[in-house]
Amino acid sequence: MALVVGKRIDGAKSPATLDRLTALIKPDLERVNALILERMQSPVSLIPELAGHIIAAGGKRLRPMLTLAASRMCGYRGHRHVVLAAAVEFIHTATLLHDDVVDASDLRRGLATANAVWGNKPSVLVGDFLFSRAFQLMVEDGSLKVLEILSHASAVIAEGEVLQLVTSNDIDTTEADYLRVVDAKTAQLFAAASRIGAVLGERSEAEERALEVYGRNLGIAFQLVDDMLDYSAREIELGKSIGDDFREGKITLPVVLALRAADERERQFWRRTLEQLDQREGDLERAIEMLRRHGTFAATAARAADYAGEARRALAVFRPGPEQQALDELIDFCLERCY
Amino acid sequence: MALVVGKRIDGAKSPATLDRLTALIKPDLERVNALILERMQSPVSLIPELAGHIIAAGGKRLRPMLTLAASRMCGYRGHRHVVLAAAVEFIHTATLLHDDVVDASDLRRGLATANAVWGNKPSVLVGDFLFSRAFQLMVEDGSLKVLEILSHASAVIAEGEVLQLVTSNDIDTTEADYLRVVDAKTAQLFAAASRIGAVLGERSEAEERALEVYGRNLGIAFQLVDDMLDYSAREIELGKSIGDDFREGKITLPVVLALRAADERERQFWRRTLEQLDQREGDLERAIEMLRRHGTFAATAARAADYAGEARRALAVFRPGPEQQALDELIDFCLERCY
Repeated sequence: MALVVGKRIDGAKSPATLDRLTALIKPDLERVNALILERMQSPVSLIPELAGHIIAAGGKRLRPMLTLAASRMCGYRGHRHVVLAAAVEFIHTATLLHDDVVDASDLRRGLATANAVWGNKPSVLVGDFLFSRAFQLMVEDGSLKVLEILSHASAVIAEGEVLQLVTSNDIDTTEADYLRVVDAKTAQLFAAASRIGAVLGERSEAEERALEVYGRNLGIAFQLVDDMLDYSAREIELGKSIGDDFREGKITLPVVLALRAADERERQFWRRTLEQLDQREGDLERAIEMLRRHGTFAATAARAADYAGEARRALAVFRPGPEQQALDELIDFCLERCY
Repeated sequence: MALVVGKRIDGAKSPATLDRLTALIKPDLERVNALILERMQSPVSLIPELAGHIIAAGGKRLRPMLTLAASRMCGYRGHRHVVLAAAVEFIHTATLLHDDVVDASDLRRGLATANAVWGNKPSVLVGDFLFSRAFQLMVEDGSLKVLEILSHASAVIAEGEVLQLVTSNDIDTTEADYLRVVDAKTAQLFAAASRIGAVLGERSEAEERALEVYGRNLGIAFQLVDDMLDYSAREIELGKSIGDDFREGKITLPVVLALRAADERERQFWRRTLEQLDQREGDLERAIEMLRRHGTFAATAARAADYAGEARRALAVFRPGPEQQALDELIDFCLERCY
């Protein structure tokens, strides 16, 4: 049932789950969820309605989990990690709302997107509200260092989103261009969320850096798998429409690799479908067939496994223990997930 | 030529200009402009292109001018006011970009809007980028108090924008609803920009509060005049399309007051044009005629003058001097402006 991607590095373990991580940080994550609910409130009732829609839809809360587990691994035992994990999730939710407007998506996590239900306008504005709330939470926490990390990450995320827009519908996009987008729009927040754990634990610069490298590589691996699933997962498993990237003309790694191997006729196909967005019945199926035939899924999975390996190496500087192990399993989970 | 609105409180002075204010803070404002140009840069060239379009279009830089003049009035003599004034302008520019997307406006400050030139998507994302940059500037400044003031203001602005969306196309909107919108979407940033001056000058809580009251009332007066001009100014003077609010079905004070005086036939007209957005040739002219006949422009101007008076009283707690006088003249300028 599960769509296993990439080769397991160890080969022996049973399929990766988030069970250990979830069990470890469950009470903290519940506090994060309660704080999110509390701080998305507003006298303007459309705000909690719309924010509640996307936040209640769930998602895996991967980014706040990184902050929670990393800070515990670094010996932090206070309450600040809950506040900052909520701030991280607010930033992520704000970018999702704006993403869905920009992509004109109808489905996210198996539910109608906020923009599909309420229209683009409130989605833009509620995104702004949640973004401001994220900064209010950070200000309450009072660490200028955390504020610096997350305001920098936010700026880079926005840059990555603009760069993605610029490379969309351009079949001359290179693998390097694509990786710049992924690093900025996805990996930066994974990196920041992880690094905050070392800041809270008042660990050395080297450990801070190790957690940043862990998060950054994990984020890239996560996004590579995501981009592959957009062509290969079953809709029900992915919880979002399949073929979204294709319909929008996004140039993701499988397509970059397929273009590299394409003959003139195939190149014309990609130009028509992704540049000119002239898409016809059966085009998505033809695209998937080509991606498969040129081995682009396996190649993308292999690259994801490389980044996952980098993440694992970075994590190795920390003493083994339950949190370290849970963060290690999270790498496998991101590689193997079928949803 | 100038469209004079409201009664001048003093009666004797010549038309208000920004000359004194501009002369006082000219070198500082040039530093703000240089910093804005420097910090809107990005390796993603679409970002400075689009941001440069809206920032170069000029605008009056009212909000950063408030920070500059208020901090000088409070005896501050360092460089921080330049950094924070730039942060204030970045927040303002980000909200303008998102506003124009939400309103689907084509014209701002006499130029095509960014969304009209580049489309909605980059406008949303570059707005996010500028918003992040604003926080990066504040973090560099390092004052948690300023961060608190401006992150709070940003959240309230977003709430105001959502509330405006909810009251749009609803002719049962009350004057109180309308004022809540204006207070949140416009007055909060005027208030925050002014208050920061007292924070930088390390003045008493009372003086901080006085500058906040000054900015807040000035902002409300400014917006009331703006809403009136949307029906009464000549396009070339306003630098934006006339009748924008009408076309979008925004319920501003002139309309609230006209509805209060409307007979059943007039009420039906407003319902058709603003609620159902069924607008025909000649409707804008008919709306203007009704607004005029019911004296709503004079009534709106009178309310603006009341708020202006509050701003003036708040300013009176400061010792007279060139900055105090310039901030006082700014009140008249906002009341009288024809652009």
